[in-house]
Amino acid sequence: MKMNELKNLIEVAAGRKSADLLIKNCRIVNVFSGEIENGDIAVVDGKIAGIGENYDGKKIIDAHEKFAAPGFIDAHIHIESSYISPEELGKIIVPCGTTTIIADPHEIANVCGLEGLKYMIAAAKKTKLKIIFAMPSCVPATDFEDAGAILNAEDMEEIFSDENIFGLGEFMNAPGVINCDEKALKKILLAKKFNKLIDGHGPNLTEKNLNAYVAAGILGDHECMTVEEMKEKISRGMYILIREGSACHNLRKLLQGATEKNSGRLLLCSDDLQTKTIFEKGHINNHLKICVEEKINPITAIQMATLNTAETFRLFDRGAIKPGNCADFVLLNDLKNFVAEKVFIDGEIVAEDGKYLPKIISQDISKVRGSVRVKNFSAERLKMNLKKNFVNVIKILPGEVVTKKITAEIKIDSDGDFIFDSSKDICKIAVIERHHETGKIGLGFLSGYGIKFGAIAISVAHDSHNIIVAGVNNSEMAFAVEKLIEMEGGMILVKDGKIISKISLPIAGIMSDKSGEFIAEKLDELHKKAHDELGISKNVEPVMTLTFMSLSVIPEIKLTNRGLFDYEKFNFIDVEAE
Amino acid sequence: MKMNELKNLIEVAAGRKSADLLIKNCRIVNVFSGEIENGDIAVVDGKIAGIGENYDGKKIIDAHEKFAAPGFIDAHIHIESSYISPEELGKIIVPCGTTTIIADPHEIANVCGLEGLKYMIAAAKKTKLKIIFAMPSCVPATDFEDAGAILNAEDMEEIFSDENIFGLGEFMNAPGVINCDEKALKKILLAKKFNKLIDGHGPNLTEKNLNAYVAAGILGDHECMTVEEMKEKISRGMYILIREGSACHNLRKLLQGATEKNSGRLLLCSDDLQTKTIFEKGHINNHLKICVEEKINPITAIQMATLNTAETFRLFDRGAIKPGNCADFVLLNDLKNFVAEKVFIDGEIVAEDGKYLPKIISQDISKVRGSVRVKNFSAERLKMNLKKNFVNVIKILPGEVVTKKITAEIKIDSDGDFIFDSSKDICKIAVIERHHETGKIGLGFLSGYGIKFGAIAISVAHDSHNIIVAGVNNSEMAFAVEKLIEMEGGMILVKDGKIISKISLPIAGIMSDKSGEFIAEKLDELHKKAHDELGISKNVEPVMTLTFMSLSVIPEIKLTNRGLFDYEKFNFIDVEAE
Repeated sequence: MKMNELKNLIEVAAGRKSADLLIKNCRIVNVFSGEIENGDIAVVDGKIAGIGENYDGKKIIDAHEKFAAPGFIDAHIHIESSYISPEELGKIIVPCGTTTIIADPHEIANVCGLEGLKYMIAAAKKTKLKIIFAMPSCVPATDFEDAGAILNAEDMEEIFSDENIFGLGEFMNAPGVINCDEKALKKILLAKKFNKLIDGHGPNLTEKNLNAYVAAGILGDHECMTVEEMKEKISRGMYILIREGSACHNLRKLLQGATEKNSGRLLLCSDDLQTKTIFEKGHINNHLKICVEEKINPITAIQMATLNTAETFRLFDRGAIKPGNCADFVLLNDLKNFVAEKVFIDGEIVAEDGKYLPKIISQDISKVRGSVRVKNFSAERLKMNLKKNFVNVIKILPGEVVTKKITAEIKIDSDGDFIFDSSKDICKIAVIERHHETGKIGLGFLSGYGIKFGAIAISVAHDSHNIIVAGVNNSEMAFAVEKLIEMEGGMILVKDGKIISKISLPIAGIMSDKSGEFIAEKLDELHKKAHDELGISKNVEPVMTLTFMSLSVIPEIKLTNRGLFDYEKFNFIDVEAE
Repeated sequence: MKMNELKNLIEVAAGRKSADLLIKNCRIVNVFSGEIENGDIAVVDGKIAGIGENYDGKKIIDAHEKFAAPGFIDAHIHIESSYISPEELGKIIVPCGTTTIIADPHEIANVCGLEGLKYMIAAAKKTKLKIIFAMPSCVPATDFEDAGAILNAEDMEEIFSDENIFGLGEFMNAPGVINCDEKALKKILLAKKFNKLIDGHGPNLTEKNLNAYVAAGILGDHECMTVEEMKEKISRGMYILIREGSACHNLRKLLQGATEKNSGRLLLCSDDLQTKTIFEKGHINNHLKICVEEKINPITAIQMATLNTAETFRLFDRGAIKPGNCADFVLLNDLKNFVAEKVFIDGEIVAEDGKYLPKIISQDISKVRGSVRVKNFSAERLKMNLKKNFVNVIKILPGEVVTKKITAEIKIDSDGDFIFDSSKDICKIAVIERHHETGKIGLGFLSGYGIKFGAIAISVAHDSHNIIVAGVNNSEMAFAVEKLIEMEGGMILVKDGKIISKISLPIAGIMSDKSGEFIAEKLDELHKKAHDELGISKNVEPVMTLTFMSLSVIPEIKLTNRGLFDYEKFNFIDVEAE
């Protein structure tokens, strides 16, 4: 801050100079007192100078008794899950009242490493939305598949001191921390050295394991499934990021454990959001709506979406309508539906009546495109050579990321390759390494997906984002994969040897360079065709379900580009069942 | 933190290794959940590793169901006000359960500048008490007297980055901030540059002035006198440091405004404490006792004395019994009287049953002694040459630091010097510059002090700590001053030309190198003699009253070494009245 800025701020605050902007007649949501306060907000140089009455402003907006709340903060989100770029995500969530997000670019880092992170930081500068990034802590997420990059502590040092990086993102390798894995602890020590925070991810951690995880310096957790789990974690000093996303719905349940005493330790986050969910329900404003439906005091709810998050992540310049803070706030018609009428960031009106106002100039994506690199791929590579027709199968549990390990009898040809039988809900699935042209391919079987015709291929596959393809015959599966490679990644449906739907995701093969509206519409269409034309079961989400089929850290059985993985044995198993 | 330390901490937390120390059977005050939790506390390498059951310990202490609370933190204290050194203060407040204090060495800095600050930091290392220091923000406090040092922003840079300095101490020059005084703002900008905090001191600030003060980046305030003032400051985002000291008693009143909603913004502090008060009442544990008497939930009260303060001052390694935190905690018999049975700092028992256990090795004081430097002083210099016998007089208001400006007729001799009249409660008072041998002396009159015989001289005088002397004739006043200079400062009573009581304060002329017990006893004796033998009124505290007589920033009339100061006119006035 410079002397003239500080002087200007004080001059306006003290009432000796006119504000740049004066919002008159607000019902201010005061997150410090927990009360509603009538008054005006004086803004200068993008900062809140004063709150009260009798200020002058060069520009005056009458709020007509609308509620003025601090801009909402999402405590944990993966931008990549929306399949759109940071600047496009900003365009659709800022109108919801969101002014800051804490983003973990874990997915793009798994594809592009630090280059992906640098792209995200650069892209973030193209949107008014304030994006605070985590350094992804677990790249790759597991040692059982090939990701595009490996980030060790040594690699992180270079950009760890960037002010846009708050610290380490969700430390998913909780067993590594608890069991003193040196690679994991090195990252933690590096964060401590840079005085950075370490966000957590500790599903079901309890008692001594929880103590160990917290003792290591882990700050928060967004994986609580029960009130009991949440309460234990709060007792150990963790902040709880209550999640409500497109797939995970923890909010209503966990709110049952929120009290006046512990609400200061509660934050709101989305983790993974699809554009469709945002268009239909909103973003953090939807969380607030749910909070009020669940009988949480609306100001307490707003604290959870603003001040608590700002303080937890040590963003001391935001999260409250306070003199000296950034002028990030939102005008709301009520504290029930939380529809944002106007959204201000750094004192600028950036959204009005659901529309994002600034012009969007997209970040250049040349350094993160062309990420789908596969060598020597052909239909031949999808052929199996099974010694028997009794096999292990991945069984989808609709709406879950966990799977069930089952066995089944299948038809095989004379070479031992699979013959699809439309009377049985079992198809072939393959995972094809697509980062380093290693040629590694994992083959297996999927049940519960329902596909009856053609093939579907995607280059979004947690967490290493290899290509996953599922289909009824090798040729259509291979055709889908080949076309997907040509597209530089994305999603594709093939039927009768023709492409019937596709979405290009040229940004690291996981994100589009198109708008949120475009993606929402195209994805809807692709989903519809997946169900209607390929016959994929209506009770599974055709794309997202598939994206989790290679995530080996989740029970019970998954397929990576290295083969079929049994979570319980924590090792690879043969496709042939015993 | 090193790899082996982190590993060891995690190993113990996870239960794979024995703790160094295990405190069994505690009723743990959980400041996160706001609840009492039964369990054991496992400590290793001075840190809390785990909370729970079934831990092993090399050393085991059975707490027998005593309450285990985080160590108490005083959010704002001037060590100098106790007249004892940091290591001696540690000795008497650690047994009260205090494990950290946030200290503003404003007084010694006014005498010795940065050298004083360096001494305090070095002395702090000689006690187990953790002392976090402020960089005094306002040295000198005013431009109307001569202090020993001037600290401008440029002078601060040198040691601002010291990890023991949290930021700028109470920014008393609130008018300077609000009116954009460049010298004041430069200090604020420096603090921001170093990412340091700025503590406040803003009595009666309200509305636009408060906005301006907060906008400048001021964090907290300990000067609230009313609930209304406190609530307005909370609403503007300030933390409120509720004060209960030897002279200022704000706690019971302000607690009337504490609610479950705002208590997270409330902290406890003492500001100024005499050793006698500590021996009689305790330290922050006494604040807690008062909180409970005022019907505050005891856990809420403990939060105000621990977690809230730690978080406000960003001491993220303490303030809660939490895995990974420093093992600073206290065992209490009850949550009513808050008597500390055992006190632990960094896992070591440092006090038991009111006794401080570690050996004390005093810090060398050679760099801060010999601070009383006066040239060409004699009884002659105390002579007045009044043109008339109608004069302005400083009237003491018992128990207050503010004074009243009155006029009176006095007796004068043929040279115009004052003749003491024991039937009138008016004596001569002089302030003698004692830092730079400037020879400056201010002369005036004091009413309401009651002195009838001899003289009293002290080298503790807020905030510049020149010598103040009051007495009934020039020769005894001069004798007291001369002896005080020989003593290197302190307090002295003279009667019939002889010393009847004295306390040496060789550390900067404001602090003793003796124990707290010694000072408490000697000060008691000196007070008694001041009343009994010099006739000083029983309704004034003979020493403290005098120490505030030169503080020109307080209404209505004061005397500095430069002359009589009228607060309303904010300028010097003649002794002769108009």
